Amino acid sequence: MARMLRGVLGTIVLLFAQTVLAADDPLPSWNDGATKERIVKFVDAVTDPTGKDYVPPADRIAVFDNDGCLWAEQPAYFQLLFAIDRVKALAPEHPEWKSTQPFKAALEGDMEALAASGEEGLLKLIMASHAGMTPEEFQNIVSDWLATARHPRFKKPYTDLVYQPMLELLSYLRDNGFTTFIVSGGGIEFVRAWSQGVYGIPPEQVVGSSIKTKYELRDGKPTLVRLAEMNFIDDKAGKPVGINQHIGHRPIAAFGNSDGDSEMLDWTNAGEGPRFGLIVHHTDGEREYAYDRQSHVGRLDKALDMAAGKGWVVVDMTNDWNQVFPAEKQ
Amino acid sequence: MARMLRGVLGTIVLLFAQTVLAADDPLPSWNDGATKERIVKFVDAVTDPTGKDYVPPADRIAVFDNDGCLWAEQPAYFQLLFAIDRVKALAPEHPEWKSTQPFKAALEGDMEALAASGEEGLLKLIMASHAGMTPEEFQNIVSDWLATARHPRFKKPYTDLVYQPMLELLSYLRDNGFTTFIVSGGGIEFVRAWSQGVYGIPPEQVVGSSIKTKYELRDGKPTLVRLAEMNFIDDKAGKPVGINQHIGHRPIAAFGNSDGDSEMLDWTNAGEGPRFGLIVHHTDGEREYAYDRQSHVGRLDKALDMAAGKGWVVVDMTNDWNQVFPAEKQ
Repeated sequence: MARMLRGVLGTIVLLFAQTVLAADDPLPSWNDGATKERIVKFVDAVTDPTGKDYVPPADRIAVFDNDGCLWAEQPAYFQLLFAIDRVKALAPEHPEWKSTQPFKAALEGDMEALAASGEEGLLKLIMASHAGMTPEEFQNIVSDWLATARHPRFKKPYTDLVYQPMLELLSYLRDNGFTTFIVSGGGIEFVRAWSQGVYGIPPEQVVGSSIKTKYELRDGKPTLVRLAEMNFIDDKAGKPVGINQHIGHRPIAAFGNSDGDSEMLDWTNAGEGPRFGLIVHHTDGEREYAYDRQSHVGRLDKALDMAAGKGWVVVDMTNDWNQVFPAEKQ
Repeated sequence: MARMLRGVLGTIVLLFAQTVLAADDPLPSWNDGATKERIVKFVDAVTDPTGKDYVPPADRIAVFDNDGCLWAEQPAYFQLLFAIDRVKALAPEHPEWKSTQPFKAALEGDMEALAASGEEGLLKLIMASHAGMTPEEFQNIVSDWLATARHPRFKKPYTDLVYQPMLELLSYLRDNGFTTFIVSGGGIEFVRAWSQGVYGIPPEQVVGSSIKTKYELRDGKPTLVRLAEMNFIDDKAGKPVGINQHIGHRPIAAFGNSDGDSEMLDWTNAGEGPRFGLIVHHTDGEREYAYDRQSHVGRLDKALDMAAGKGWVVVDMTNDWNQVFPAEKQ
């Protein structure tokens, strides 16, 4: 009888322990397996004060690409979709746009003609939609857009199309003394408009591409105004430059998903001591999108070839993530 | 007897309370008076969750000029003295400098000729001494210099010539949930070399002037190299621009000492809600230096005129600070 009781008690304890363990898993959307193990192993190593790979909190800098790494980027960068919507909203003030490219293409939703306008055309679109206001005004415009715009396929707000496993990873790293930075090829002020609310990342921890701003007195009131002139392109070889400029030291972990992130990962991993590089490979056409070497958005070709030799973890979205987007809010 | 005992006990309690209060004073190097009161009153107001001026910690951003605000800047900016020493150290590799300005002036310690070479001359000096290496290498060069260089008047390391009252202010603000940023007209990488050790301010909380950097592979190893080309001048109207670029929101408190800080203070104070602006006025020729409207370094003229109308606190170094530099280390 006593033995039986012990057995029952043991089972209860075991079940309880398993429940606690499951509840304690900081990465529940990551399937158990090699990918998750490598993440946890790295974090354990750099946070163990008795281990040889210990890194003090001040140096636990982790950098994340945004488009395709923290939120989706198909069928086009969300910021481009914002620019198109913004051009539509401003069109009444610009009757000439009806017959001028790339504005005509944007107004008609002709993505092919828009792509044909090339980098120069896209730049015109960005400048027309992103400049001429204060940073605060611009962020309000972005917030207003996010509140109403819906993704063409998922019919959800764009900020719902963030990756649940990456949200968990951000929290997990911060809970372990990391500072998490976004290092985006997208616009720094565009991301700052929502990074705190969506990722828990404050404006000062966002690095990105930027246009110039100018200080001026408007009716005696000190004001910054966004100018239609590029300041910095935070992509490819620009990412290490942007990181050094904003953060001032080399990260120990870098997360990306495309060739535009390869220099950031390579530079991060070339530092001394323990390093971690991870690439999100979009393999899940059903729950999200499947694309890599041939994609016009977020091409992953060179960086995929580099990953094995450099020791970067490649996330197979289909098999490594049991959930892609956050569950529907109740 | 009992009454007498109560009296004695009361005195003891009072003495004890005063001792505790003195020990608890977070700003012991600031004399009691209007200046100190205004600082404490502001911090109390923005940290009182029940008050109308409460500001959540995420928005408690405080920005500090460096030269003349956190450390001394006479007889010349310390970074210029570094550049001169660096040119001397590099001179054997550049025999042509013996007969070329501004290098000749730097090598001969002829500050008058150096000043006569103008902005262009100083820029040449900076580029020759600050470019051509990685950011890490540059910071090591700066650290090595700081370890041996001595101030011409005080015969102390330059990092000993920081202002004790400002160190206390930095700690006091951080203890009250502020994030403290340096916003320097000086070089961002120059300040980052020692800001953590001296001010407790990490590299990512330093904003400053910068030269361009370039990403390249050196023997296959990803490297950043500092180029002899200006990137950004973080002074005057550049300060609000630099703050917006790096921090991404408007500070609620700004600290400076010269006309180069007036736009930063003005822009900070033009925001909504409680704001604080402070100018260090160098009035103490005995313990430090006395200079303002006529000085070639750290000129304080326009900003001094603005202070009263804008409600900025003006620190009178002679009367507001009972100690200027940190006490000798034991």
